[in-house]
Amino acid sequence: MRFKAGKSGVDQMTSEAGAPHPANRDIFVSHSFPEQQVDLGEITLNYVEAGDASKPALLLVPEQTGSWWSYEPSIALLAENFHVFAVDLRGQGRSDWTPRRYSLDNFGNDLVRFIALVIKRPTIVAGNSSGGVLAAWLSAYAMPGQIRGALCEDAPFFASELTPAYGHPIRQAAGPAFALMRDYLGDQWSVGNWEGFAAATKASRSPIARLFFATDEAPQNLKEYDPEWGRAFFEGTVALHCPHDRMLAQIKKPILLTHHAHHIDPETGDLVGALSDFQAQKVQEIVRSTGVRFDYRSFPEALHMMHLFDPPLYTQVLREWAATLPDA
Amino acid sequence: MRFKAGKSGVDQMTSEAGAPHPANRDIFVSHSFPEQQVDLGEITLNYVEAGDASKPALLLVPEQTGSWWSYEPSIALLAENFHVFAVDLRGQGRSDWTPRRYSLDNFGNDLVRFIALVIKRPTIVAGNSSGGVLAAWLSAYAMPGQIRGALCEDAPFFASELTPAYGHPIRQAAGPAFALMRDYLGDQWSVGNWEGFAAATKASRSPIARLFFATDEAPQNLKEYDPEWGRAFFEGTVALHCPHDRMLAQIKKPILLTHHAHHIDPETGDLVGALSDFQAQKVQEIVRSTGVRFDYRSFPEALHMMHLFDPPLYTQVLREWAATLPDA
Repeated sequence: MRFKAGKSGVDQMTSEAGAPHPANRDIFVSHSFPEQQVDLGEITLNYVEAGDASKPALLLVPEQTGSWWSYEPSIALLAENFHVFAVDLRGQGRSDWTPRRYSLDNFGNDLVRFIALVIKRPTIVAGNSSGGVLAAWLSAYAMPGQIRGALCEDAPFFASELTPAYGHPIRQAAGPAFALMRDYLGDQWSVGNWEGFAAATKASRSPIARLFFATDEAPQNLKEYDPEWGRAFFEGTVALHCPHDRMLAQIKKPILLTHHAHHIDPETGDLVGALSDFQAQKVQEIVRSTGVRFDYRSFPEALHMMHLFDPPLYTQVLREWAATLPDA
Repeated sequence: MRFKAGKSGVDQMTSEAGAPHPANRDIFVSHSFPEQQVDLGEITLNYVEAGDASKPALLLVPEQTGSWWSYEPSIALLAENFHVFAVDLRGQGRSDWTPRRYSLDNFGNDLVRFIALVIKRPTIVAGNSSGGVLAAWLSAYAMPGQIRGALCEDAPFFASELTPAYGHPIRQAAGPAFALMRDYLGDQWSVGNWEGFAAATKASRSPIARLFFATDEAPQNLKEYDPEWGRAFFEGTVALHCPHDRMLAQIKKPILLTHHAHHIDPETGDLVGALSDFQAQKVQEIVRSTGVRFDYRSFPEALHMMHLFDPPLYTQVLREWAATLPDA
């Protein structure tokens, strides 16, 4: 069961004709690592495990609109050096969907529980995009002893907030694409109008919306994704209780921020990328003011998901940085 | 340190004259049980422990505007039958204050961590008012095996939400009192105008505001309380990611709801009490639809904080119900 609301007897998720609700449709494909599930209390979380338990523990957290398997090519390279765990967050892949309960704190506490129940030792965490924000969240807010360091791969600090302390807000960045998901795909794919979505992204004034989504058929990763995630980002509720400036000021373990291709669109002033140079500078200032080690690496040619599109470079960056981390 | 924002180097909490910020003022008094602290990762949580480890574990969660010691007289009676833990939540008593981070999910996950790190076995949880809502939260969302049952003592289901699925919203219940805290006391007591607060509560159109707060000096419990809690309830953000109807539909362990004195004010239509009969009925319907055991006891003469004002009755109710619970 990927979507458990039906269990409750209240949110019976079936369509009007009695067919399975879109959230329960079987759209999954198989992968080269065996998938496992763990009961975290609220959700059942889907994950894969690779490499040997004698190696350092590594937790990989996918980008929004992704599932664990965006790391599939990287895992093959990392398994030699790490005991690798890659997860689907709530609302991603085969993990449960949780309508009305998508927040950074809930995503983050799922990972706290995953480390407590499955990994059970100090962990290096690496996340991409929203997953990179969650890596920082763990550095700030995990239980004592759980985290060794956090790689934040092109993480949209500030730029994924509705009212950030610094720089571009989400509505001048990736937000418009999420608004189109809300309107054309709907919470739990309840609308499901892919054709309308493709046309609207193509016609959007937002450069990010135009760049990423005008394909003829929904790609596998989006099929596995609950569009309510996107709505929570567009509406700003996802980070309402976790302002990034405060979270960054509470970082406790070393951070590596990688910063990939980005520019300011001259027409709209929008940020096309995960975060601006100004925002990356502010991240650095805040984290360094805590006394915690902060590393920054710029990859101006890299795509947002380096781990998917350039696994050799991504795994090299991760491996080199991880080798410098203290044990716990 | 009761308030750690200063640690971050960003939120230095000092007043303009360089005197300690109101949040750091030393206003505590001593109690008859020794206080201990545990590092949960984000916050240091203050708690007391009483009774023998051979007895069933019991976790007591105070009401909003309260600290652990509202249970002081009850703990003395309960320690014979239980291994008792009573906590200050974030923003209460000697636990850390967490500006901009007050939400049911964050309060709840602090308790998940407390059970994991301190109690370490299946626990009966009993909470009053907001603490009773959190007892239900634990029944729904705690890690597997942590909770045996939840006593929700006059818990404001629905009536502490901004846009509840059923019945009176918070602004037609306790909300107006919280709005006056926001205006006259301020986040982290940054305003601190007690005289203005007392006058405004006296003059309020809200029967709850008039009932509870028009004292000449701030009572000890309010001195120890971060008024941002109240603002988060008044503004509805506290439960934004935790709609009560959904939480109740996900209950997994037995619930006892006690329902104390309440009435509808004929002048304003406001609910004077924790929840209405209609709301209590809806709680029962939703929980029972999950198949989980639900008990309801009405105490029309009891004050909201029965555990403080009638410890013999409160502890008898708790003891009798706890004796009927399965082991885990």
